[in-house]
Amino acid sequence: MTTKYPPQLIRLIGAFKQLPGVGSKSAERFAFHLLDWSADQLNEMAKSIETTQQLRSCDECGCLVGEAACLLCDTNRRDPDILCIVAHLKDVFAIEQTHEYKGLYHVLGGVLSPLEGVGPDHLSIHKLKERIRSLPVKEVVIALDSTLEGDATAFYLKRELAEYNLPTSRLAFGLPMGSALDYVDGGTLARALRGRSSY
Amino acid sequence: MTTKYPPQLIRLIGAFKQLPGVGSKSAERFAFHLLDWSADQLNEMAKSIETTQQLRSCDECGCLVGEAACLLCDTNRRDPDILCIVAHLKDVFAIEQTHEYKGLYHVLGGVLSPLEGVGPDHLSIHKLKERIRSLPVKEVVIALDSTLEGDATAFYLKRELAEYNLPTSRLAFGLPMGSALDYVDGGTLARALRGRSSY
Repeated sequence: MTTKYPPQLIRLIGAFKQLPGVGSKSAERFAFHLLDWSADQLNEMAKSIETTQQLRSCDECGCLVGEAACLLCDTNRRDPDILCIVAHLKDVFAIEQTHEYKGLYHVLGGVLSPLEGVGPDHLSIHKLKERIRSLPVKEVVIALDSTLEGDATAFYLKRELAEYNLPTSRLAFGLPMGSALDYVDGGTLARALRGRSSY
Repeated sequence: MTTKYPPQLIRLIGAFKQLPGVGSKSAERFAFHLLDWSADQLNEMAKSIETTQQLRSCDECGCLVGEAACLLCDTNRRDPDILCIVAHLKDVFAIEQTHEYKGLYHVLGGVLSPLEGVGPDHLSIHKLKERIRSLPVKEVVIALDSTLEGDATAFYLKRELAEYNLPTSRLAFGLPMGSALDYVDGGTLARALRGRSSY
């Protein structure tokens, strides 16, 4: 008779396997690591996962909010003249960390991806248009990934938002900071050349 | 004013960072992934972590047991003539999966590691001797890693168990299955040569 994992362990491994990029081996490693934890540590982790339910996205901009109102929608703190469109919740934090942007955000909730069945109706585009009409927006910044899906979504947005006649820009493409020319791929270099600025 | 992560998210990221091999970036990735989960999924994961407390190691052999008694200590099912010494809980399952071993186990709970402050008193060596005295053991198999710590622990065990005058063996070292000679490191090849068997 061969011994298999006890059911509790199998359940735990199954839970960890749902995390992105975690396969059977990593999930097992995590699970066996937890066996050495104290009851307090286990309860704290379980609790922290449960309380994630308290987090919700703002009905207006789609950004992440705790229990309080959305600070990123507060026009007393943020410049309502400029609206930055991002794909995911996480992108907002990445842009905030640059300290370069003080305007409003709009989280689309993804990018167009026909292969994964994500069409315009799955993204928060209707709400975006509504906000552009109601807010005193004077400029739109499209901050999407420099991937095929990002490009397609940016192009789609540009066309959809054309009716509002707003200056629309997209994040610059070029060399990442600290990169050596001969290590940068051809596509990046071509875009950096095309987007060169006077110096 | 820059927006930081809400406290619930910071707590969740902190919890994930305690998993082995998970740094800030992976923990953030896991946490943001959980934001898309349903309440049911979150509760299931939290619950599965909580129930890990039900798992305990057998007082006798140190193997993992659920709620029932330890099947690996059951001498009706397992051969009590042979005792296999492993470092960790997980090693037992690895050996069980080979279907090559039907004897008893003893989990040391680690290997000697002066750098990490693990001495003989931290390992279940006293209990091991007790078991060897009380069980009808006729052979001891040392199944430790082929690392410096594994080697040192195996050597220490060999000396400690010398008084019982039992045939003691260690797992064979040699080429892993499916490996090409010129890709195997020198140390492995040297040990494979030393341990060559008639063919």
